[in-house]
Amino acid sequence: MYFTMWRFVADRSKNFIASLTRRSLSFEQRFSSLPDSSSVMSSTPSTPVTLETINPKVLKCEYAVRGEIVTHAQLLQQELQTKPGSHPFDEILYCNIGNPQSLGQQPITFFREVLALCDHPNILDKSETQGLFSADAIERAWGILDQIPGRATGAYSHSQGIKGLRDSVAAGIAARDGFPADPNDIFLTDGASPAVHMMMQLLIRSEKDGILCPIPQYPLYSASIALHGGTLVPYYLDEATGWGLEISELKQQLEDANSKGITVRSLVVINPGNPTGQVLAEDNQREIVEFCKKEGLVLLADEVYQENVYVTDKKFHSFKKISRSMGYGEEDISLVSFQSVSKGYYGECGKRGGYMEVTGFGADVREQIYKVASVNLCSNISGQILASLVMNPPKVGDESFESYSAEKDGILSSLARRAKTLEDAFNSLEGVTCNKTEGAMYLFPCLHLPRKAIEAAEAAKTAPDAFYARRLLDATGIVVVPGSGFRQVPGTWHFRCTILPQEDKIPAVVSRLTAFHQGFMAEFHD
Amino acid sequence: MYFTMWRFVADRSKNFIASLTRRSLSFEQRFSSLPDSSSVMSSTPSTPVTLETINPKVLKCEYAVRGEIVTHAQLLQQELQTKPGSHPFDEILYCNIGNPQSLGQQPITFFREVLALCDHPNILDKSETQGLFSADAIERAWGILDQIPGRATGAYSHSQGIKGLRDSVAAGIAARDGFPADPNDIFLTDGASPAVHMMMQLLIRSEKDGILCPIPQYPLYSASIALHGGTLVPYYLDEATGWGLEISELKQQLEDANSKGITVRSLVVINPGNPTGQVLAEDNQREIVEFCKKEGLVLLADEVYQENVYVTDKKFHSFKKISRSMGYGEEDISLVSFQSVSKGYYGECGKRGGYMEVTGFGADVREQIYKVASVNLCSNISGQILASLVMNPPKVGDESFESYSAEKDGILSSLARRAKTLEDAFNSLEGVTCNKTEGAMYLFPCLHLPRKAIEAAEAAKTAPDAFYARRLLDATGIVVVPGSGFRQVPGTWHFRCTILPQEDKIPAVVSRLTAFHQGFMAEFHD
Repeated sequence: MYFTMWRFVADRSKNFIASLTRRSLSFEQRFSSLPDSSSVMSSTPSTPVTLETINPKVLKCEYAVRGEIVTHAQLLQQELQTKPGSHPFDEILYCNIGNPQSLGQQPITFFREVLALCDHPNILDKSETQGLFSADAIERAWGILDQIPGRATGAYSHSQGIKGLRDSVAAGIAARDGFPADPNDIFLTDGASPAVHMMMQLLIRSEKDGILCPIPQYPLYSASIALHGGTLVPYYLDEATGWGLEISELKQQLEDANSKGITVRSLVVINPGNPTGQVLAEDNQREIVEFCKKEGLVLLADEVYQENVYVTDKKFHSFKKISRSMGYGEEDISLVSFQSVSKGYYGECGKRGGYMEVTGFGADVREQIYKVASVNLCSNISGQILASLVMNPPKVGDESFESYSAEKDGILSSLARRAKTLEDAFNSLEGVTCNKTEGAMYLFPCLHLPRKAIEAAEAAKTAPDAFYARRLLDATGIVVVPGSGFRQVPGTWHFRCTILPQEDKIPAVVSRLTAFHQGFMAEFHD
Repeated sequence: MYFTMWRFVADRSKNFIASLTRRSLSFEQRFSSLPDSSSVMSSTPSTPVTLETINPKVLKCEYAVRGEIVTHAQLLQQELQTKPGSHPFDEILYCNIGNPQSLGQQPITFFREVLALCDHPNILDKSETQGLFSADAIERAWGILDQIPGRATGAYSHSQGIKGLRDSVAAGIAARDGFPADPNDIFLTDGASPAVHMMMQLLIRSEKDGILCPIPQYPLYSASIALHGGTLVPYYLDEATGWGLEISELKQQLEDANSKGITVRSLVVINPGNPTGQVLAEDNQREIVEFCKKEGLVLLADEVYQENVYVTDKKFHSFKKISRSMGYGEEDISLVSFQSVSKGYYGECGKRGGYMEVTGFGADVREQIYKVASVNLCSNISGQILASLVMNPPKVGDESFESYSAEKDGILSSLARRAKTLEDAFNSLEGVTCNKTEGAMYLFPCLHLPRKAIEAAEAAKTAPDAFYARRLLDATGIVVVPGSGFRQVPGTWHFRCTILPQEDKIPAVVSRLTAFHQGFMAEFHD
């Protein structure tokens, strides 16, 4: 049943996979029995590489956040440009992806000042520069350049990142947690995604190695596990308790996996949750740490939304802080924390900066992680600088502090209002329930669809939530991602919608969504 | 014999591998017989991840450019800082890596102006900006911002890169080659390395898939093939004919691989060569294209040194141009060309920009490449902008053209002089022969070592060229990479040395090298 529905997330490769499946062959059977590429029949016989002869792990990989629905949206956008008025909306509103600046969020001025000065240090001592840039940005740029050997922002750095910038990141972590952080544990990376890939590459030996992932999950995890040939071991978050994470569920799924011969190597936790938006309670985090320690699992903590918490009764606590506060150190738990410059109030997705903090691994294994990092030489220096800035923003007394704080607070409080407005809007719709967005950048409403809508989706050979999302796009220009892209409890249907449209657009989003939904429900009423 | 010597390139993981080998177990035997991680004995029993339980492909991977000798150099550098005078030199000279700006090469001013303005567009219309930046840099920045939806340089872009920037890159390729280029064939990437990984990931299904690579080779290739679990099929460049590439050698190695059950999928050609510095003749390139077409191989053309040609009798020709001039189009040959902002006269390694131009693949396979790119969302926008700039630098008549040309010509002519001086210096040494550096950034001299030196290396359990390189470092502070890191004809010994020290330092480099070498040869004279 689950597989049947999952298959609906169809693109060409999926159809190809499905055609193989119908012939009752597993991937492995199908591909291991292939002769060499030169003798394979193919739809494009003139090229040596065909779908039949590429790495089947690539075929298996799916990434719905940029999947079929987004491709269709791009097509509509082109049509709007070439034929204005050809659709019942003026613009495409990309609510499929956590990409704040694409929807008009402005970057934090101080961060951009420092980046520009580090890109073109020749202007640092010119008089005009003092009229254009804040004094503390100029000072910060000098400080950063002094940390770079030869002030060469155009040179490859140490493969973990520039030491002085890692010092800043570590200081920021220590200030956040109240526990020390070691710059040698920091790997600066081009965003969190490559860091996740590195850990999957390290941990996964074969399909017999499993990674426990939340369902619903951010599809980077399923994609990365597929590309590295491992097995995603699902644990279901409980929608009824606000996407609660139950240790009993972890245990159950771990045992199930073990009984199938899967060695579970790691537990992925996304906190605040993506796509679910929940913020874990401290007690719950302690249970998770205890579970990983007892079962010998590496805890992969996706903490990229650490600055995105919108409720007053919850706070973000890093798993490192929780572990250390329980008295657990390097010897007790293997923990990797991922952070990115793409999220938070900064939202600098295009800069591709981030880090992972790697603790609780032996020196010999750490050397292997360094080696893999060194093959790609280093992450981009602007992203490295930005990672040091988000972990060490202006402080009280700095010239930029007031404007920086105003920008930051403006963005975060607006995000909180938008989350609440959209949550209320979804909950006011017939057949829709939506948990509170405590953090992150998403709502993940549940669709209780009429039987006729489900039948119509089946007739269209698509999953009911993909059917709904496609109809929503065609009617309103609003792009959301069907829940099937994140996986969900079989038989339930959701979609992920970001809270990122600018605040002045929210009323229009709500009214367009509402009108569409009412029409959809009327059309398919049982 | 080859394996025995190769094993000398030892770091801890190598020793670990060697210990397994001595126990007469292959990797696969060793690892497939392991029970689950929790019950494995290990040197650090408290952590769940050990060398015995990580992905063996990671263990196998080697990257000598940042290997043991560089780690030792970093240690010496620290000692020089804490104890000045503790070594017979004042500074470490990193000639191990093509990292021009780390050795003092200045970035091209125009490129940095544009990057800074795109990082902080708020200053674009300020009057002070006109005093700080050239008019065409301001104009170019406006033009680039207009190509980015919402002028959002902080947003994720299309996963292949911003369309307008790909248009610029394609226009630059067309101008270079005299044949059209399609922006939809361009994938902007964080340097060339991730692009190479993507292609290896696509092509390699198992260790039965082979990739033909030149020997000596840039170790990115051996590392990437190891990480993706494929087999490197070597073809030897002929040192006696200036690192000539013989088609008969390609055929021989292809047949040998086939006879061992290896399906060769692709041919890697590095032109200009790394570490060998040769520039391929046009006739030779035509033969290579013919060979790939006939054998159904994907031609992976590493063309990152396309701007680095120092001889007047040779020119760089892209393999795309060669193929098209032979009348071969999309249907005839699958060709991927890699380019990077890290090399050329720009040398912007820290920016992590580059592209691959993917031609001759079916639409369905291209979709799979796009999907894999989309999992990491996009490459960094500054790197994307820089890739568009290096493929479309200032033109005659632009305000910056003269200063840009002076900077470019100054760097390239200086590199040519440095290459010649170092080549002559190496050739004047007893027992050293060195081919001409026609292009790229390296010399790869051959060491004809006395028997006693080889015995001393064996006694020290290291390869003779690694032994030489270590002694060179300890005596002079000059860091080179032993030839074993690139592989070489068994029984021959080389090292790679960049031509990148600034010109005023070259005389000192030569005299230090010469004095060291004379002492070394005297010490180990037969």
